[in-house]
Amino acid sequence: MILSIVNPNATHAMTESVVQTARMVAAPGTRIDARTNTSGPLSIEGSVDGAMAVPGMLELMRAAEAEGADAHVIACFDDTGLDAARSLLSAPVIGIGEAGARAAGFIARRFTIVTTLSVSVPILEDNLIRYGLAGHATVRASEIPVLELEANPDRTMARLSAEIAAAIAHDRAEAIVLGCAGMTSLATQLSKRHDVPVVDGVAAAITFAEALVALGLRTTAHGLYAPPRGKAEKDGDAALANQNSVSENTVL
Amino acid sequence: MILSIVNPNATHAMTESVVQTARMVAAPGTRIDARTNTSGPLSIEGSVDGAMAVPGMLELMRAAEAEGADAHVIACFDDTGLDAARSLLSAPVIGIGEAGARAAGFIARRFTIVTTLSVSVPILEDNLIRYGLAGHATVRASEIPVLELEANPDRTMARLSAEIAAAIAHDRAEAIVLGCAGMTSLATQLSKRHDVPVVDGVAAAITFAEALVALGLRTTAHGLYAPPRGKAEKDGDAALANQNSVSENTVL
Amino acid sequence: MILSIVNPNATHAMTESVVQTARMVAAPGTRIDARTNTSGPLSIEGSVDGAMAVPGMLELMRAAEAEGADAHVIACFDDTGLDAARSLLSAPVIGIGEAGARAAGFIARRFTIVTTLSVSVPILEDNLIRYGLAGHATVRASEIPVLELEANPDRTMARLSAEIAAAIAHDRAEAIVLGCAGMTSLATQLSKRHDVPVVDGVAAAITFAEALVALGLRTTAHGLYAPPRGKAEKDGDAALANQNSVSENTVL
Amino acid sequence: MILSIVNPNATHAMTESVVQTARMVAAPGTRIDARTNTSGPLSIEGSVDGAMAVPGMLELMRAAEAEGADAHVIACFDDTGLDAARSLLSAPVIGIGEAGARAAGFIARRFTIVTTLSVSVPILEDNLIRYGLAGHATVRASEIPVLELEANPDRTMARLSAEIAAAIAHDRAEAIVLGCAGMTSLATQLSKRHDVPVVDGVAAAITFAEALVALGLRTTAHGLYAPPRGKAEKDGDAALANQNSVSENTVL
Amino acid sequence: MILSIVNPNATHAMTESVVQTARMVAAPGTRIDARTNTSGPLSIEGSVDGAMAVPGMLELMRAAEAEGADAHVIACFDDTGLDAARSLLSAPVIGIGEAGARAAGFIARRFTIVTTLSVSVPILEDNLIRYGLAGHATVRASEIPVLELEANPDRTMARLSAEIAAAIAHDRAEAIVLGCAGMTSLATQLSKRHDVPVVDGVAAAITFAEALVALGLRTTAHGLYAPPRGKAEKDGDAALANQNSVSENTVL
Amino acid sequence: MILSIVNPNATHAMTESVVQTARMVAAPGTRIDARTNTSGPLSIEGSVDGAMAVPGMLELMRAAEAEGADAHVIACFDDTGLDAARSLLSAPVIGIGEAGARAAGFIARRFTIVTTLSVSVPILEDNLIRYGLAGHATVRASEIPVLELEANPDRTMARLSAEIAAAIAHDRAEAIVLGCAGMTSLATQLSKRHDVPVVDGVAAAITFAEALVALGLRTTAHGLYAPPRGKAEKDGDAALANQNSVSENTVL
Repeated sequence: MILSIVNPNATHAMTESVVQTARMVAAPGTRIDARTNTSGPLSIEGSVDGAMAVPGMLELMRAAEAEGADAHVIACFDDTGLDAARSLLSAPVIGIGEAGARAAGFIARRFTIVTTLSVSVPILEDNLIRYGLAGHATVRASEIPVLELEANPDRTMARLSAEIAAAIAHDRAEAIVLGCAGMTSLATQLSKRHDVPVVDGVAAAITFAEALVALGLRTTAHGLYAPPRGKAEKDGDAALANQNSVSENTVL
Repeated sequence: MILSIVNPNATHAMTESVVQTARMVAAPGTRIDARTNTSGPLSIEGSVDGAMAVPGMLELMRAAEAEGADAHVIACFDDTGLDAARSLLSAPVIGIGEAGARAAGFIARRFTIVTTLSVSVPILEDNLIRYGLAGHATVRASEIPVLELEANPDRTMARLSAEIAAAIAHDRAEAIVLGCAGMTSLATQLSKRHDVPVVDGVAAAITFAEALVALGLRTTAHGLYAPPRGKAEKDGDAALANQNSVSENTVL
Repeated sequence: MILSIVNPNATHAMTESVVQTARMVAAPGTRIDARTNTSGPLSIEGSVDGAMAVPGMLELMRAAEAEGADAHVIACFDDTGLDAARSLLSAPVIGIGEAGARAAGFIARRFTIVTTLSVSVPILEDNLIRYGLAGHATVRASEIPVLELEANPDRTMARLSAEIAAAIAHDRAEAIVLGCAGMTSLATQLSKRHDVPVVDGVAAAITFAEALVALGLRTTAHGLYAPPRGKAEKDGDAALANQNSVSENTVL
Repeated sequence: MILSIVNPNATHAMTESVVQTARMVAAPGTRIDARTNTSGPLSIEGSVDGAMAVPGMLELMRAAEAEGADAHVIACFDDTGLDAARSLLSAPVIGIGEAGARAAGFIARRFTIVTTLSVSVPILEDNLIRYGLAGHATVRASEIPVLELEANPDRTMARLSAEIAAAIAHDRAEAIVLGCAGMTSLATQLSKRHDVPVVDGVAAAITFAEALVALGLRTTAHGLYAPPRGKAEKDGDAALANQNSVSENTVL
Repeated sequence: MILSIVNPNATHAMTESVVQTARMVAAPGTRIDARTNTSGPLSIEGSVDGAMAVPGMLELMRAAEAEGADAHVIACFDDTGLDAARSLLSAPVIGIGEAGARAAGFIARRFTIVTTLSVSVPILEDNLIRYGLAGHATVRASEIPVLELEANPDRTMARLSAEIAAAIAHDRAEAIVLGCAGMTSLATQLSKRHDVPVVDGVAAAITFAEALVALGLRTTAHGLYAPPRGKAEKDGDAALANQNSVSENTVL
Repeated sequence: MILSIVNPNATHAMTESVVQTARMVAAPGTRIDARTNTSGPLSIEGSVDGAMAVPGMLELMRAAEAEGADAHVIACFDDTGLDAARSLLSAPVIGIGEAGARAAGFIARRFTIVTTLSVSVPILEDNLIRYGLAGHATVRASEIPVLELEANPDRTMARLSAEIAAAIAHDRAEAIVLGCAGMTSLATQLSKRHDVPVVDGVAAAITFAEALVALGLRTTAHGLYAPPRGKAEKDGDAALANQNSVSENTVL
């Protein structure tokens, strides 16, 4: 099967980090098709970044599906554009935020998401409400900007570790979810240090996407996820093609 | 005061209809600055259309604020891009969906929103949950596409009237909200026919925007609505300017 | 238009303070008709005061409507008797608590209400649940009794300021709502000091009432707000006029 | 023990019907002290009636407590003035609406309340939300006015029976609560006819009040139920006794 | 009337303590039939203990009903097996956790449950959600294991007292519920020390069970509480009696 | 990896049907270890059956883990004993009800569960509340007893098909979940007939269990899922092995 991963921001290094994680957890027969949304912002920090990233991301995902993708992963913890992607595409789509929270929900009753900046906290809280998990989860910000996560690994590790300790002490956290695609390499180390399951959303999304493909499930064509209707003069396809951004496509 | 109204879709006729309503309800000292998002889809029907419309819409709104707008109205009942607009801008921003629901909430405990197509129903229901009004409202679709609302006024009137009658009979609706900017001219007539208050979201948004300006309130700069952070290589402004669409600007 | 403001408590000084605020924010063509419920308690602190205030308040509001009021404002942050007033009257009715919370909701996702005494906290929390805003708001008490708010302005300012600082630090408050009609003159100063929007419920209620009149909306006559039915022997009017009958006591 | 029952409306026949029920279910040692609020409306139909009834009702309840009442029952299914009564008094207070719903909750997961007029439906629904039972209950109106319940017993029986049948068929009702003090004599007969438990709120309130007295529990003096604070010039007591002052009207 | 109390754990001393409380609060005509589930774990601490206790407990309760019990009390604060018991039996069944919370809800708006170990906290929180009381209650653990409650009364008193003080200071608790059948003798003393109502769930369950019997109410036979259907080969009765069969294991 | 599947009821035919489904969807390297709880009831219909099944089921699961199981699936749509199993075991545990609902949630916003008998409807509704999916799902009963599902395949197919048609028409269902392990072979056929995704909970649980193993996640040892504490005289293990002791009965 071909698993399409799209990084909605324009930072190649993050895409590569995500691909490394994907390869470690994916089944032997899974091919990873990773794309970077070079027309988007360098990172997704807040709702403006998210809104700017979506049109280019949707274009990349449609191309991936046209080229045979069996499932899609949106590699941003905000699950940017998840509803639109499900409406546009037929193969199943999973966001890494949703996947991380769902995985935590299978092994713990209460968990804490540790994300980057506090501007993302209300976005993740809103998502948790929509996913029905708000009563089970707390969101904490490490206040490390996305693009600095890898610049100073020791500081990143120290800040995440401090938030995890606080989550266990104050939030009654029984598991931790790492709330950014850029934290994906730290899960194992943090789990050992704090003796608590640490979920990486990227890895969770890969395995759940494989599961949905194994189940033969496709996104429904009814309700919110119904495909866009054509319009008289200019249909949804045209609008998609009319965003002018060049995106980059790396099939691995 | 200058009140900016942005139509997130590319259909000029809808912008003009909105401007007519705005002029009827606006205070004498209010100047209407209406803009049409010509880079967007012809109508907003579902989440793909919504996602495609937002970047161009934000660009228009930022231009309007730079040119002196004291408040902004997003003239799509889905409240497309409302959070991003509040984050990007400093003047208050009101969506016509939120305004219509809030106005109904001041005069009735239960109300029904009558919108266009059923694909919009879950979007409006999600918004109602976020606005805290889900327990008080029902959403019904008239199944008339946005662009056909004005093509056949008799059919539109008959369909809306049938849904309003059903809402009163089955939803215990005590008031009606018209759930599309394109229905804005029919409120008075429908209210008389069914002896029930009928709220037009466009008119409501205009008067609430005026109210917020009178109160001297600006959108908070904290939390979800904090302005986007600049980024090392390419900041949010650049991304906004990097969407290539030409938008049209009509100051009336 | 004539805007009726009723102070449900018996303290004239509070009515006058409210009127001053109203005049500052009201549109040029708005006449303010202010009434003090001299049959009520000196302040509304808790549910007993609230219950005792309502019959006299309703009588004043009915008189105001008979004399031409186009809209009504209940100038108590508990929104005392709001449902009964909407049922009794045809012109729109707005409580200052509801108005303050709704105004904050247009410019912030999370806000904190700073009220007088802790006995009011659960009343305001219950109202927030009914308005659908409980998930977005925190209520704090300054522990200054209503009638002492103006007695020692420096202490009032210091206590409110301390609670606002705590709200920003601990509640993630992005905006503040002043939770008592008696605090109405302090909003601007507190907003500057803490660099956060501060909403005054009195001012918000005035402008929203003007908005509803501009929209031509009247309270629905259906459901909870249906006008009281006449009764065979003694109708609602009679009961309104008949608050000092002797009650009968049968110990069995 | 002395159990005070107050009928918040002015209709003696309803008080007597309530007393008959009370005597059938009360323990041998319980003395019933029943009072009719002759200063209130003839029946409580909607929020205006409710608001008008409370001051007189509170006065009667305070007198009852002064004369030795160990517990209080408010004999109106709307639980009119329940919070204020709990704040004013020290002995436990139970409303017949709350009692009926709680009793049903002990023996069924879903139940339907059958009340008089549809104007009471949203009031009871709001109460159910506050009691945490909204997800378990449906409210139906028989559309028989309170004062006609006993006028035509056959019609009353037929209407209630039809609503109970509908509740079982459509609401998945597993138990029924009779939603008006005036229906108190019909519970047994309806239960037999429909083979489903039928709860009478009056009887439930009597037995729960006895239970609270047996437990030695008094209403808390903290939070919402804290007793009213005295005020400098005119305290809560004075206000209670002072319901016919002339109100002042200043048109500005 | 005969009131059956079943202690789902195997510790006789706890049964005896419960019986002492029951006798103090029960009406003169109430006979107490107490049974100890000697097939169960020595205490119920967490969901495994709970699951292991239920089959034996149900067997005891069915025997009690066959021998004439008019109502049942499950003497474990987790309300272990409450739904199954209501389905199996016809007489009303009350858990001491539900009873304690309901009693507190009649006299306070917010209360705190002080239980034994933190493993029980999420169980009690889940129950509060189901009972509709989650928004009104906090659960705290004293971290005293069930079987040590009576071993060191001074330490027990000190720990409970510390949690009650914290509940009043931090949870805005207006009343306290003692969250374990083993704490039943301490309620009065703790109430005096902290000047706050303290509810003992055992006592509350006794009086509410008596109330339901006085009301003539039996558990509904519809919905979740419908009695188990007989099965072709082996019905529910057989399964109840058949807890030591060998299970079959097929490794494929 | 070894995947343990336990059928909590005593019917071998259902276990075999589950194993067939498991083999079709499981990855090549997955070994299926299926066990039938012969000490349990023949089917799980309602809460009494569920309670009786759990002790034997837990014993089987503990044996499976001791023999090397890497993950566990509980093959009853009620997710019987899920919390207790997670507490007792260290490998991840998934119930087929939870898995089916989660899978549907990845591909649809609204779905309907079609189960066997109406007695299971409130159990599944309670589970959906706990999983945070209640707002997205409807539960319908086909009224076919578990053990008759395979007896008359045509009737089963017709009844399920009728409920699916009703779900699409009335519940706005965008996907269907088959709510019983015994329906596992019908998913594909029903999906084609109604042109809507049909999720089989058994298959979903298999693939999600494989995903959790691939992620290296184990159930947390904190909070609700903390392992049972040993007890002085008789620990949890002893209780597990000790289901046929004689219980003691003291009538006082």
